[in-house]
Amino acid sequence: MPKSLLILQPEGKRLKATVGKAILEIAQEAGVDIQSVCAGKGICGKCRVIVRTGSEFLSQASKVERTVFSDDEVKKGYRLACRAIIVKSGTITVEVPSESRAGLQRLLVSGVETSVEFEPSVRKYLVEVGRPTLMEPRSDVDRLLDSLSVQGERRIERICLDALRRIPHAVRSGERKVTVTVWENKEVISVEAGDKQTKLYGFAVDVGTTKLAGYLVDLDLGTTVAAASSMNPQIPYGEDVISRISFVMKDPKGLSQLQALIIKEINKLIFEACKRAHVTPGQVHEVTVVGNTAMHHIFFGIYPGYVALAPYPTVLRSSIDVKAKDLGIDINPCGNVHGLPVIAGFVGADAVADILATQMHASDDVAMMIDIGTNTEIVVGDRNKLTACSCASGPAFEGAHIKNGMRAATGAIERVYIDPDTFKIGYETVDNAKPSGVCGSGVVDAVAEMLKRRVIDSSGKIKTKLGLPNISVKNGIPELVLAGPSETASGHEIVVTQEDIRQIQLAKAAIFSGISVLMRQLEITTRDISKIFFAGAFGTYVDPQSARVIGMYPDVPLSRVQFVGNAAGSGARMALMSLKMRRKAGEISEKVHYIELGADANFQNEFLNATFLPHKNLELFPSVKRLLED
Amino acid sequence: MPKSLLILQPEGKRLKATVGKAILEIAQEAGVDIQSVCAGKGICGKCRVIVRTGSEFLSQASKVERTVFSDDEVKKGYRLACRAIIVKSGTITVEVPSESRAGLQRLLVSGVETSVEFEPSVRKYLVEVGRPTLMEPRSDVDRLLDSLSVQGERRIERICLDALRRIPHAVRSGERKVTVTVWENKEVISVEAGDKQTKLYGFAVDVGTTKLAGYLVDLDLGTTVAAASSMNPQIPYGEDVISRISFVMKDPKGLSQLQALIIKEINKLIFEACKRAHVTPGQVHEVTVVGNTAMHHIFFGIYPGYVALAPYPTVLRSSIDVKAKDLGIDINPCGNVHGLPVIAGFVGADAVADILATQMHASDDVAMMIDIGTNTEIVVGDRNKLTACSCASGPAFEGAHIKNGMRAATGAIERVYIDPDTFKIGYETVDNAKPSGVCGSGVVDAVAEMLKRRVIDSSGKIKTKLGLPNISVKNGIPELVLAGPSETASGHEIVVTQEDIRQIQLAKAAIFSGISVLMRQLEITTRDISKIFFAGAFGTYVDPQSARVIGMYPDVPLSRVQFVGNAAGSGARMALMSLKMRRKAGEISEKVHYIELGADANFQNEFLNATFLPHKNLELFPSVKRLLED
Repeated sequence: MPKSLLILQPEGKRLKATVGKAILEIAQEAGVDIQSVCAGKGICGKCRVIVRTGSEFLSQASKVERTVFSDDEVKKGYRLACRAIIVKSGTITVEVPSESRAGLQRLLVSGVETSVEFEPSVRKYLVEVGRPTLMEPRSDVDRLLDSLSVQGERRIERICLDALRRIPHAVRSGERKVTVTVWENKEVISVEAGDKQTKLYGFAVDVGTTKLAGYLVDLDLGTTVAAASSMNPQIPYGEDVISRISFVMKDPKGLSQLQALIIKEINKLIFEACKRAHVTPGQVHEVTVVGNTAMHHIFFGIYPGYVALAPYPTVLRSSIDVKAKDLGIDINPCGNVHGLPVIAGFVGADAVADILATQMHASDDVAMMIDIGTNTEIVVGDRNKLTACSCASGPAFEGAHIKNGMRAATGAIERVYIDPDTFKIGYETVDNAKPSGVCGSGVVDAVAEMLKRRVIDSSGKIKTKLGLPNISVKNGIPELVLAGPSETASGHEIVVTQEDIRQIQLAKAAIFSGISVLMRQLEITTRDISKIFFAGAFGTYVDPQSARVIGMYPDVPLSRVQFVGNAAGSGARMALMSLKMRRKAGEISEKVHYIELGADANFQNEFLNATFLPHKNLELFPSVKRLLED
Repeated sequence: MPKSLLILQPEGKRLKATVGKAILEIAQEAGVDIQSVCAGKGICGKCRVIVRTGSEFLSQASKVERTVFSDDEVKKGYRLACRAIIVKSGTITVEVPSESRAGLQRLLVSGVETSVEFEPSVRKYLVEVGRPTLMEPRSDVDRLLDSLSVQGERRIERICLDALRRIPHAVRSGERKVTVTVWENKEVISVEAGDKQTKLYGFAVDVGTTKLAGYLVDLDLGTTVAAASSMNPQIPYGEDVISRISFVMKDPKGLSQLQALIIKEINKLIFEACKRAHVTPGQVHEVTVVGNTAMHHIFFGIYPGYVALAPYPTVLRSSIDVKAKDLGIDINPCGNVHGLPVIAGFVGADAVADILATQMHASDDVAMMIDIGTNTEIVVGDRNKLTACSCASGPAFEGAHIKNGMRAATGAIERVYIDPDTFKIGYETVDNAKPSGVCGSGVVDAVAEMLKRRVIDSSGKIKTKLGLPNISVKNGIPELVLAGPSETASGHEIVVTQEDIRQIQLAKAAIFSGISVLMRQLEITTRDISKIFFAGAFGTYVDPQSARVIGMYPDVPLSRVQFVGNAAGSGARMALMSLKMRRKAGEISEKVHYIELGADANFQNEFLNATFLPHKNLELFPSVKRLLED
């Protein structure tokens, strides 16, 4: 009798494949969190999985699946987990893509992993230092460098002062064996007594306007050994980049104040990650840093004021290397802090890292990267040409300027579904808690569902005269009630108002019009786009189908959409692990052609057309057109 | 009628040459301080000058001059200023060598000046930085480096963080003209608004165990614009190098304590020199530092403990470059502090600088350099080979361990003369003040005079039975009374005791035996020595003839002896003004063969022979032999 096995990728989780059960059911029983807003009814289409092997042991694709997926996707093995029933014993391998993950699982998405040639900037050498004699009283440093030169590729002459100061004691203990850490094959940055070769770590950090994410990497083995994250402590000085810059411009001490805050917080992250991995911070020998240009400048103590003023020039575009002690970063004081290069005032080192992580710059086919935030960075192109812009998409996707909006925190409604027959609302909340508000992805879902169910028209106007159960009008403003007072944590109902819809329309129009300008520059159409990468937190939460329905991005098959999570963090780690990637980052920063949308003649027009749902020109969105005509 | 003019070099002072007057008389009337212990009697032989032109307008060389000077010296124009009488109107040019200078003038001797190819490590460039545009919003740094690369020899990529932070404001003021300071053609270390090209200074400092000397150098013009000196503030922690090292070894905080003291003091010197020259310390962009190995290590915060333990290895031999802010040196924080290389544990960067200043390393003929101190460094050799050693000569030459000994401060008897007929004592004091003690050069003079007048024999024993007026015996110890109670500041007599003579014998024996070991190593004799340089403070005060009489150095004609004053300071300035000299210093540090006297089989024997006055083997000192037989 053949083995009956369901393997869930990428974890490689091995489960019993009971005949008669749906994949969703088995996965949920085993604690693997797959999204399912309609609770397995085969309606919401959120529980997408890809069957890699053993499709012959599953039921045929249902009618609903043939609607949800394109022919291409069906061919590739896309199924809804709730509709794929095991009909025969056998081994089935199924991939659960990140966009189908629910709850906490999603918060852990740490970004795409592109394999890199492991070539860190720091290397350790174990050397034996000879004794001086009366006839040949060579200096400690000369004797150490002599021994090192036997091992290294070339003779190192530079020694960081703090490392130098450790030499006399180090060479006289540990039976004259010392471990020497060399940076970029040109400077000794640490000298330790005894064999400490395996104690070699680096830290990659993504400084977001809202959130910091850090990764402790074992630079001896090339593995990530711990992660830590926290909120950006600068938030009280302004929620977004512009208000932070304003603070620095107004207050002469603002820059050093904000810099001190971020340094302190990163030191905390390093300490936490090290503690978790039983590593001492002194064993961390390099830090790579990414972040948008303002965060980047502030971190290095560089005045960001002019970044906010037309023509928005950066102070520093290229990469920067600074000794940890000069910044007050608590690692080996001689350790290097490497800031990845930026592209423009509003396309920062995080975008460079995104590109690095997705390898767009090396792609033969045209790809697009969208990192959604208050400012949304968009990069489009291929190995020959990359263009980038920044759109003022505003904070709506982060739940701000939305009546019951909130961040994607516990209790936020993040998935919304409207029953096509009963028009009843289904929703999911973060951590499955009682709803206390609605986050960006929830609002996007709500708007998409309203459009699909014709509750709103392409101008976004709520149809109040249909007499639908969840539509009401308050103070003359129509709204969709997502949750009634009895269901919510506060006892107040949670709604999406006409004004909220308007905010979403403006935000997505900002993004789509930016995309349009870049595509026009490159003279490409939707057909030419082989891949769309969604990066960043919102890009991890948002439902790609809903986003496509409202016209946030060009109408490509969902199989071409990839969620890359914190790709900026991944890029930072890649730069930490590979000098080659660091050089690539430099090339990317120089190569990417930045387009200032404000200077583009078509931008205003593109923007107005894009405020429609999905777009004034419905022909640009054939899949949405089909859906609406259905 | 021809002009009657006396020109005194090196000042170029022009005086009226009155017929009938001696050069000494005219010079003293004009305030030019020429030594004259015997008050112009033609006996002491201290008022040596060299007649460069116009000897035909002077009296013939007297009998006493023909005794004092060798034939070679007479040929070169050597005269005693008191015996050279103007006999005819005409222009006479006379050089007053530094060893004939008296009083304050000598304190200002700033060391030999060797002309160097002016090639400082720092250069300033005035660049105009373009404006960014919407279509081309290049970064501030890129635009600045673009403009700079047009002027510089190659594109600079490195910018010191503090300089980088000044860029956004600097490029937006001063009509977009900025002055960029570049270090070693590879790093931008300063960016200033407007044209600041001529504000380019450096500071050279010699960190002596006892004294600090600093020189502010205009690195735009290549001139020394101010000097400042002070006592080493570490003196309370030990008078000599060994006791300072002991302090550091005993006290875990000792190193940082002594380092902080020296840094603070150097900052004071920089501040003072800058104030005097109307320069702000921020306009100082580099500091060069020399000092013995212990002072050098302590200055850089490098543990010097092992330097004091056999085999006395240094921690660092080669040169070192550290950012000023990393040491707390108050100049441009991005400015470089360059420590010249050392040779061995007891032959430091000061010796390297001495060699640099005297250019011994480039000499075709064998030269010898003697830098007298508690440890006396000796270097002997030529362009092919240089050997060096350090002798524990002790503090006697600095007035310590001498009954009425004192430093060469105001009131110190520094010149002693015994009248050959009356045996009366003549002396000179520093600043012509009432005598309050006797300094090293005074004791050396006294011993030499006693030997010459046969008051002592070659074993150093005072002959008490001659009934000489100034010889007395106190508590069984014979002594020479230099000044009676009525003449002195304290009202107590000032004496040189039998024990003081013994101290001088030991000290000079340490030096001469070191010289002997080096000469044996090089297989040379006294004849081969073309030049002997006396460096350092004592080397400036001591009378070379007296030193030769007591056998401190090989018996060469006085014309071969040159006083180079603070040659270490000169070498530090040369390294400041010329990258080529810096490279030379590196070569010197590697090339000089250090001899550890303690490991030399002949040393003990050489030492014992050298305790005699002038030496056990009188044949080694033919001129002294002649003098004693006279």
